[in-house]
Amino acid sequence: MSYTIEVRIELKKGVIDAEGETVKKSLNLLGYRIKDVNTVRIYAIKVEAGSENDAVEEINEACKRLLANPVIQNYSVTVK
Amino acid sequence: MSYTIEVRIELKKGVIDAEGETVKKSLNLLGYRIKDVNTVRIYAIKVEAGSENDAVEEINEACKRLLANPVIQNYSVTVK
Repeated sequence: MSYTIEVRIELKKGVIDAEGETVKKSLNLLGYRIKDVNTVRIYAIKVEAGSENDAVEEINEACKRLLANPVIQNYSVTVK
Repeated sequence: MSYTIEVRIELKKGVIDAEGETVKKSLNLLGYRIKDVNTVRIYAIKVEAGSENDAVEEINEACKRLLANPVIQNYSVTVK
């Protein structure tokens, strides 16, 4: 069966979010009172697996191997 | 008061998701049975506003002016 898994990847606390900073500055220049912007990357992945648990396990492994950088990023995996 | 608003920006149907395609190919090469990958960009924005409604309205306007490209992207705004 095929499952849709959402992987949410965000920077760890203390890591500078360059894109977020740029968005914040741009919005401030446009007159918005923005105090902070954090960017998050989501991958919505359709995966073929025997069960929901297998699908989550597989994507967790894929995060460790490819999708997330554990030095600077946190990730979470949810079934949709 | 300050509110945290999450803006979720994704590509419209029919628009090619180059990053998603690349991720899909890479995961397939690693042996995962991935059928599809869609990428979504989230901005978690802390904004100063008089009320929750004002904050949402302001960020909706910011999406139209700067954050989203209405030709190829859909966006949604939620309060966190």
